[in-house]
Amino acid sequence: MSEELPLTLTGYAERAAEVLDAGPHGYYAGGAGDEVTLRDNVDAWRRLAIRPRVMVDVAAVDRRTTVLGRERPHPLFVAPTAFHRLATPEGERATARAAAQTRSLYCLSSLATTSVADAAAAAPEGARWFQLYVFRDRAVSDELVAAAVEHGYEAIVLTVDLPVLGVRERDVASGFVIEESTAIPSVRATGHDRGLNMLEVGELIDASLTWPDVERFATQSGLPVIVKGVLTAQDAHLAAEHGAAGVVVSNHGGRQLDTVLAGADALPEVVEAVGERIDVIVDGGIRRGTDVVKALALGARAVCVGRPVLWGLAVGGEAGAAAVLSILLAELDTALALTGVPRAADLGAEHVQRAPWA
Amino acid sequence: MSEELPLTLTGYAERAAEVLDAGPHGYYAGGAGDEVTLRDNVDAWRRLAIRPRVMVDVAAVDRRTTVLGRERPHPLFVAPTAFHRLATPEGERATARAAAQTRSLYCLSSLATTSVADAAAAAPEGARWFQLYVFRDRAVSDELVAAAVEHGYEAIVLTVDLPVLGVRERDVASGFVIEESTAIPSVRATGHDRGLNMLEVGELIDASLTWPDVERFATQSGLPVIVKGVLTAQDAHLAAEHGAAGVVVSNHGGRQLDTVLAGADALPEVVEAVGERIDVIVDGGIRRGTDVVKALALGARAVCVGRPVLWGLAVGGEAGAAAVLSILLAELDTALALTGVPRAADLGAEHVQRAPWA
Amino acid sequence: MSEELPLTLTGYAERAAEVLDAGPHGYYAGGAGDEVTLRDNVDAWRRLAIRPRVMVDVAAVDRRTTVLGRERPHPLFVAPTAFHRLATPEGERATARAAAQTRSLYCLSSLATTSVADAAAAAPEGARWFQLYVFRDRAVSDELVAAAVEHGYEAIVLTVDLPVLGVRERDVASGFVIEESTAIPSVRATGHDRGLNMLEVGELIDASLTWPDVERFATQSGLPVIVKGVLTAQDAHLAAEHGAAGVVVSNHGGRQLDTVLAGADALPEVVEAVGERIDVIVDGGIRRGTDVVKALALGARAVCVGRPVLWGLAVGGEAGAAAVLSILLAELDTALALTGVPRAADLGAEHVQRAPWA
Amino acid sequence: MSEELPLTLTGYAERAAEVLDAGPHGYYAGGAGDEVTLRDNVDAWRRLAIRPRVMVDVAAVDRRTTVLGRERPHPLFVAPTAFHRLATPEGERATARAAAQTRSLYCLSSLATTSVADAAAAAPEGARWFQLYVFRDRAVSDELVAAAVEHGYEAIVLTVDLPVLGVRERDVASGFVIEESTAIPSVRATGHDRGLNMLEVGELIDASLTWPDVERFATQSGLPVIVKGVLTAQDAHLAAEHGAAGVVVSNHGGRQLDTVLAGADALPEVVEAVGERIDVIVDGGIRRGTDVVKALALGARAVCVGRPVLWGLAVGGEAGAAAVLSILLAELDTALALTGVPRAADLGAEHVQRAPWA
Repeated sequence: MSEELPLTLTGYAERAAEVLDAGPHGYYAGGAGDEVTLRDNVDAWRRLAIRPRVMVDVAAVDRRTTVLGRERPHPLFVAPTAFHRLATPEGERATARAAAQTRSLYCLSSLATTSVADAAAAAPEGARWFQLYVFRDRAVSDELVAAAVEHGYEAIVLTVDLPVLGVRERDVASGFVIEESTAIPSVRATGHDRGLNMLEVGELIDASLTWPDVERFATQSGLPVIVKGVLTAQDAHLAAEHGAAGVVVSNHGGRQLDTVLAGADALPEVVEAVGERIDVIVDGGIRRGTDVVKALALGARAVCVGRPVLWGLAVGGEAGAAAVLSILLAELDTALALTGVPRAADLGAEHVQRAPWA
Repeated sequence: MSEELPLTLTGYAERAAEVLDAGPHGYYAGGAGDEVTLRDNVDAWRRLAIRPRVMVDVAAVDRRTTVLGRERPHPLFVAPTAFHRLATPEGERATARAAAQTRSLYCLSSLATTSVADAAAAAPEGARWFQLYVFRDRAVSDELVAAAVEHGYEAIVLTVDLPVLGVRERDVASGFVIEESTAIPSVRATGHDRGLNMLEVGELIDASLTWPDVERFATQSGLPVIVKGVLTAQDAHLAAEHGAAGVVVSNHGGRQLDTVLAGADALPEVVEAVGERIDVIVDGGIRRGTDVVKALALGARAVCVGRPVLWGLAVGGEAGAAAVLSILLAELDTALALTGVPRAADLGAEHVQRAPWA
Repeated sequence: MSEELPLTLTGYAERAAEVLDAGPHGYYAGGAGDEVTLRDNVDAWRRLAIRPRVMVDVAAVDRRTTVLGRERPHPLFVAPTAFHRLATPEGERATARAAAQTRSLYCLSSLATTSVADAAAAAPEGARWFQLYVFRDRAVSDELVAAAVEHGYEAIVLTVDLPVLGVRERDVASGFVIEESTAIPSVRATGHDRGLNMLEVGELIDASLTWPDVERFATQSGLPVIVKGVLTAQDAHLAAEHGAAGVVVSNHGGRQLDTVLAGADALPEVVEAVGERIDVIVDGGIRRGTDVVKALALGARAVCVGRPVLWGLAVGGEAGAAAVLSILLAELDTALALTGVPRAADLGAEHVQRAPWA
Repeated sequence: MSEELPLTLTGYAERAAEVLDAGPHGYYAGGAGDEVTLRDNVDAWRRLAIRPRVMVDVAAVDRRTTVLGRERPHPLFVAPTAFHRLATPEGERATARAAAQTRSLYCLSSLATTSVADAAAAAPEGARWFQLYVFRDRAVSDELVAAAVEHGYEAIVLTVDLPVLGVRERDVASGFVIEESTAIPSVRATGHDRGLNMLEVGELIDASLTWPDVERFATQSGLPVIVKGVLTAQDAHLAAEHGAAGVVVSNHGGRQLDTVLAGADALPEVVEAVGERIDVIVDGGIRRGTDVVKALALGARAVCVGRPVLWGLAVGGEAGAAAVLSILLAELDTALALTGVPRAADLGAEHVQRAPWA
């Protein structure tokens, strides 16, 4: 690549829009319906103001967090997103390496274009979780879980907000088809040998999942199960009652049901409901170190970053993804220092308030 | 038509703006005054957020509703709108067929360019209501009601928010005249034999209607009377007291009095006032399956869709109107599944909240 | 004039911007500072929603109001504005005739380019008030008041919000100078015989007025004194205590102190404070019949219209001003009918609410 | 300079953008992160409405204030900003003279391109304070403080919100480097002899400052210490407890931590916490006389103006800076008169309210 990498996340977003073809770009960038929630995912963090403290010694910043009982070097995780080979030839291998290089936990998607084994092998030293879609063909899911167990994935992240696919007009408009469908190990395992559009992919998923499935996957895998896609206190309670080790407060990047709450807005009620019992993670719209500070202040243990990593992959492959994560980590350090809270673990509700401009 | 039909409602709206002449397009698209309410009809649904539940078996979705004691296959009704021959040569015949094809109840307008009898004959199997304007020449209204009774219309929808015509500057600017006035059976019956502008049409309507008229039309027709155009709890109470079988919470598509509340905002107080006694329907700004979910969650039994059907008619006649209704129905299915409420009848206030972005 | 007159107020505003020179147009259109209040004068009415009632006999509409104990045919008054000869050669004579023609009370400005006597003579049958600026040279004010008494003006409207001129950057930018200064009777009476800019005009005004001056002018003239420029309950109380017969809730068209409340927002507290004792009138941002309905519903006895009349004068002289007033009156009739309140005097707080979109 | 000076602050801002090179302009104009707080600094004043009183004798206006026990002719102070030689060849000498000419207190920055001694000598009659950054090399700070004491600076303004530099993308994009670094006395004293970028400048600052340092600087200098960069009641309390003579409610012009509160919004809680004990000053977004009135009404003793003075310097050197301050002072006089509070010291909470448009 002759051009230098961008220096800001905005720069990555703009460059990614240039280098990606219309179909994949629409798939990555788009959301459900009128994209109200898609936009609000970013805006919702901006509706929170930080209450910074001064005259605190911030010469050293400590951004460690503890999730599922393990200490992590920092709270910035790579969200599960699909089809990385659409962004970069190396696909999820590049992502796994970028994550490991920045000591970011990587959550591999069930719709990866790289096998569970290969993604692990690409960066064996990296911490990794596996995101699970439960296929109608349950044997496929079972194989995926077994592979995750075998290859050192530390948790199952069970996505619960895609019983059916959301209304995604960008994909309809672009006629987006995963030409690589046969290269997606999970889809191939379901028996498909041709390109699929996203509605067809959606139809592979089981729409009849219920809470007892959480316990079943935990028992089956012996791994902690994190329920991803919870937006209400009620469901957070149910997740905890059914043995979930954690929840990801998420609206699936604004891609499933439009006009649901952004993670930033749903987070407080979920933390209040289950924050003392299980780990709460949040995703959606994280674009700045200040967003991470706000998420932690509201009680999240970690945040997942999705689209920015895809922009990094599209623009610069592994190096690009690593650069994106590094920019965010540097911003996190600055934000902690300027909030006057050098230890990330000390952030609390007293450090945020509703913004007067919102 | 050589071009394919659009795939989204937005696509229909844009195409309709291209294919319609300025006068009819302004008439269909425009609203009263500064069009504050016109725009807010759409925006008001967006100010509501859905609170979705997860891990509910949504493999099968049931969108039935019960209105006036009868089960309907789904809650999407075709609102009464005028002059369909301005949109498509087949006029209301096309609409009636599109409605029947999608099992949508069709409410024929008093200002139809097709007779009450012909609209019924076009789709005898379809469920139909008749919207009534009370003309100064009461004999005309009486004939319309008698025809509706004779031809199997199941209810009279009495419009009460047009004692005089609203301030519609688009029609003034375009010099819109209904050249087809003599082809409008109701107008022809009043004795007019030339083109009328909308102010002249408005002057045909009786501005002295009062609540006892509800009972009179119910008695006269033997049909249930639904009062359309109620925006306050006070008037909803009066409607119920005067024998109305239901009310349509409506601001006439933003075409009558500007800066009144959108249906979405007036609905809760009307439901609270009379929802236990009579059926509450809402119209205005329904553009998405999620809007329907919100309306039902707030207590509506059904929603009426106006302009989108006109776009469909303008773009593709019967097929276009049917396609628009089908898109909305598919979105409704998706929205029910992703809200975690597979039975539409189970939606309740707990599934919506004021949106933080509003 | 070869072109036809516009059909809407927006049309008048646009045409006026074309026909007026930059200096006068900036003077008429501009406001103080960043023009926050200027814009909000219009927006504030839009933040109020009408709660319309239906099934009321509105075949006949009665828009009468009572102000200072006299019945007026309608509540639309012509606000005092300066320098009408900048808009039309006939100046205030044209305005006086347009007002009389539409039975609108006309409030002549102290900064008229027509004498108190000549304005009265132009439309002797018209109801008229006289707006008073108190000049440093008190003899000038005394002469104006005496002339108003002599020529049948029914009240003195004492402007209290211009002790000094506001910050008006449009006038600074355009270098606006009243070349006609010597043709302004009041200014000429102060001894000036050359063009003045607005700051110089402002310096003619007495900045030391206090409440006892209200009683003094009432006694001196034998006329009721209306205090114009009150925005708080506190000052409304003081006005009533010092013998004012009424107050005009006004921010001087957004031209004096930026970021003060719009009339629509200050009106309720003023009505609550003194509405039972003295008459409350409001001005600022009235552009629609619905705005008048809202003002009356909040307790105003009448509204004053400023800029739209100037647009009318600039575009079509007397006929233009009359047309503007007629458009507003027609809209008022429609708004009363569609609010379901055929008698303007029956409007009350139950007919308005804060708009959900605001 | 052949062109005339602009007549409004907006004019200065626009002209400054034209005459400055991209690097310095970006440095002066830019803020942290997404510049949410940068923009809100201006917007927050606009969210406050003035409640003006009328019929008050405002023929004479008195804008005096008392800060640190001394009467000042007016409450408009020049905020400490860096590198004035980037704006005008005379650098801080021009600013000092412009401040003295308008009787504005001048707060010299630690990052001035003029020595503490020379800035004082340029306008010996002017009131002056010294803004202190505490360098890692504490000897440098000690020398600066000693020079301030020697040269008649009346207070130390200790900046506490820059333990590390904020995320400033404009500087990253422009590659902004202080070529003049060796001409900055404080930086030169740290031993650097080459151009630095802002991150490198930031690294010269001590990130381990804590509250006891306030007392240390007060004792060391014998001068009152004002803590600049406080945004919470908690820190205001701590400042007062640790001997601060005052606080500046400030977010560093939106340049440090994005999405913190604007001064206008943080001011009330700080005034409530410590306003009875120590002096509260505010900066950020002051662009109008009305902004000053609002700040005083909320309890500030004075306001600091930053960027507008830089625009003045860039556009017209000393004369430009003086003109900017004069425009603001004239607006302040007008605003006091039109608020009906001729003595600035009489402004109180009753003169402001939350704006209905916000």
